[in-house]
Amino acid sequence: MIRPMEILTNPPREQWPMLTRRALADEKGRVSEIVADIMARVRTEGDKAIIDLEHRFTGADLQELRVSETEIDEAEANVPQELKEAIALAIRNIESFHKAQIHKAVEVETAPGVSCWQRSVPIDRVGLYIPGGNSPLFSTVLMLAVPARIAGCGETVLCTPADKNGRISPAILYAAKTAGVHAVYKTGGAQAIAAMTFGTDTIPRVHKIFGPGNRYVTEAKQQASTCGVAIDMPAGPSEVMVIADGNADPSFVAADFLSQAEHGADSQSILLTTDSRLADLVPQEIDRMLTDLPHAALASQSLLHSRIIVCPDNETMMDFANLYAPEHLIINHSQASELAEHVRNAGSVFIGPYSTESAGDYASGTNHTLPTSGYASAYSGVNTDSFTKKITFQHLTAKGVRSIGRAVEVMAEAEGLYAHKLAMTLRLQKVNN
Amino acid sequence: MIRPMEILTNPPREQWPMLTRRALADEKGRVSEIVADIMARVRTEGDKAIIDLEHRFTGADLQELRVSETEIDEAEANVPQELKEAIALAIRNIESFHKAQIHKAVEVETAPGVSCWQRSVPIDRVGLYIPGGNSPLFSTVLMLAVPARIAGCGETVLCTPADKNGRISPAILYAAKTAGVHAVYKTGGAQAIAAMTFGTDTIPRVHKIFGPGNRYVTEAKQQASTCGVAIDMPAGPSEVMVIADGNADPSFVAADFLSQAEHGADSQSILLTTDSRLADLVPQEIDRMLTDLPHAALASQSLLHSRIIVCPDNETMMDFANLYAPEHLIINHSQASELAEHVRNAGSVFIGPYSTESAGDYASGTNHTLPTSGYASAYSGVNTDSFTKKITFQHLTAKGVRSIGRAVEVMAEAEGLYAHKLAMTLRLQKVNN
Repeated sequence: MIRPMEILTNPPREQWPMLTRRALADEKGRVSEIVADIMARVRTEGDKAIIDLEHRFTGADLQELRVSETEIDEAEANVPQELKEAIALAIRNIESFHKAQIHKAVEVETAPGVSCWQRSVPIDRVGLYIPGGNSPLFSTVLMLAVPARIAGCGETVLCTPADKNGRISPAILYAAKTAGVHAVYKTGGAQAIAAMTFGTDTIPRVHKIFGPGNRYVTEAKQQASTCGVAIDMPAGPSEVMVIADGNADPSFVAADFLSQAEHGADSQSILLTTDSRLADLVPQEIDRMLTDLPHAALASQSLLHSRIIVCPDNETMMDFANLYAPEHLIINHSQASELAEHVRNAGSVFIGPYSTESAGDYASGTNHTLPTSGYASAYSGVNTDSFTKKITFQHLTAKGVRSIGRAVEVMAEAEGLYAHKLAMTLRLQKVNN
Repeated sequence: MIRPMEILTNPPREQWPMLTRRALADEKGRVSEIVADIMARVRTEGDKAIIDLEHRFTGADLQELRVSETEIDEAEANVPQELKEAIALAIRNIESFHKAQIHKAVEVETAPGVSCWQRSVPIDRVGLYIPGGNSPLFSTVLMLAVPARIAGCGETVLCTPADKNGRISPAILYAAKTAGVHAVYKTGGAQAIAAMTFGTDTIPRVHKIFGPGNRYVTEAKQQASTCGVAIDMPAGPSEVMVIADGNADPSFVAADFLSQAEHGADSQSILLTTDSRLADLVPQEIDRMLTDLPHAALASQSLLHSRIIVCPDNETMMDFANLYAPEHLIINHSQASELAEHVRNAGSVFIGPYSTESAGDYASGTNHTLPTSGYASAYSGVNTDSFTKKITFQHLTAKGVRSIGRAVEVMAEAEGLYAHKLAMTLRLQKVNN
């Protein structure tokens, strides 16, 4: 390792706010302007702007933005059988967990003659964004498209950038087809988000946009959210927190750290432990593993702002974890299940030595699109509900008007809203005649 | 009426996008800068900035930002008994409907030895914003504080501006106390949102901010949402759509129109009807009612961009309604229940002649904080879930590792994430030994 990882022993609580702070994105102003220009251009020029921008950023000379049936068939032929089987297993588990989340209608007679109910209704059109680059994130396709299908969304489209030859990774196209995506478009970055926000001749306007991306994509999603489109959640660098005691295998902890670190230089891993021996062993294991790891340089960067904190007891570890609100929380501890009961802020929790984050990243059935940067204090990860909205309904009978009519009149008058009062007075007059 | 309300008969579908478009807020750039300045000032100067800004905007000379116990006791003494009883009835019904929405934990064994579950956990600290002005919106206090209490939020604070004498409406303070708000602070506008976003010596930082407001508040909430705080939903002018047939009482429809119109000059009301006679009678009723209405001038402004659309059949009305995605949808129609089954996009639906919007605004039990401006296509209104986040958990046994371990290895390798693969390989080696 270039620099030894920071190990802190029992830092005072006054330091916790600093220790739980995430690195802030810099140059937000410039990114914001570049994105605003791209959004405006796509809004006015549509497909032409997309084709120009894709050429500029990737070198691709696209004739058609929509991926053809032929391309999808070719992709299918190029995905190895073992990967197809793994994808099938992942889809089965994701389906099983996300089907159990389907919202059941709620109905209550709140007062005599007053029925109120709440129904979950799928969002008509959803857009999924999948980044390009060296790692073809087909697993994210599954995590977004499978719940969309289970929720019953009418149309699910996916945007992902093609390479300079106009090609998309076969695994992404195969995952999209298998998980029920209706159409895939070759565009990435802010222009992809702009296309799904405003619509072009080829790419439909959607009601909600999901998926990860770099800071241009993140900024574009934020701008989209003020232009009539919903987004899944704010995005930031990925992060893992591991809580471990002396019984944890240091190599398991080290591998979990590196899984996070290989995502990118800005990823963060934090180990909380009551065992100072483990605090010493984990960095040694990491050093040993790094030599064999293809993304070692990237991972080393990330490890520079990762840290190990030795805590006096379990309660302190849980307090710190709840303040940090990690995206992923691995509890590799002999009392893992008890500690998990005290989790108040986290995206997803992995309990016990065998529940590595990779399990949930790919195939256990939980979703891997999760809140980062402390947003887990208020946001849920993507789940079946993310693809629906809840609509309330009410039906008052004449009896219902008699039950609550006078209360409505009194409250409306007290707020100085006389037409609100009148609307109920007319009903009261009718039912009392 | 100053100008006759626009009546359109069977407009062609090509015109629908234009007819469902909402008025856009102007001067966004300037509002955005003013708000950014206020946010930055509150962030650095805290309470001092709040006290200065409140003095500048309201003339109030505040010594203490937090409302005292004495002020709350005085408020309670000043609320008439009949209003207290109406508030008690409303709270009972809101509680009854929102308790039924409490999320039940979901648990699934997705594969042998792989248990996944999802638990709803209350957000620790939530902030409610209640605007000042002539209408003391104590009903909104109930709509936000009651579900927060039911969800189990640890701390619920409320910000609302005081008048120039440093006073807050007794009804707001009484509602806050009765609905379980923990502390009320005398501040409004962007500075109130900034205080809850960054925290000051007096006002705590919260994890999610709820509540309506003018465009400064709306802009401040948007800016807050990029500073680590969640918000309930984007806000826009209030709106109602009424679907009615020839059996609807024109005076009911007229009063429902005016209830919307009295909210503000930018409110919008739309009537869809298959009955051209009703289309003629409703404006006459509105004219008649306007003469007695205290907010007649405001309502007349709003009616300028309200309209009546005569449609050929029920299907056309439902198609138009789903494209418009109204905040409130009143179906005052002899086949109201059947039509309600076809609602795909709306905030809250009021079925039948007696279900006036006022019922849901105050006392039926449904929430009145609802998505506007077409956001109902993707957003839910405020509900019990809005005060919680869903955390997923997983536990793999040795058997679980054998069930899905190989699939995880294959997928991780295909994404080029070798540490992800290694983390599972180490577990597989352990359980296979």
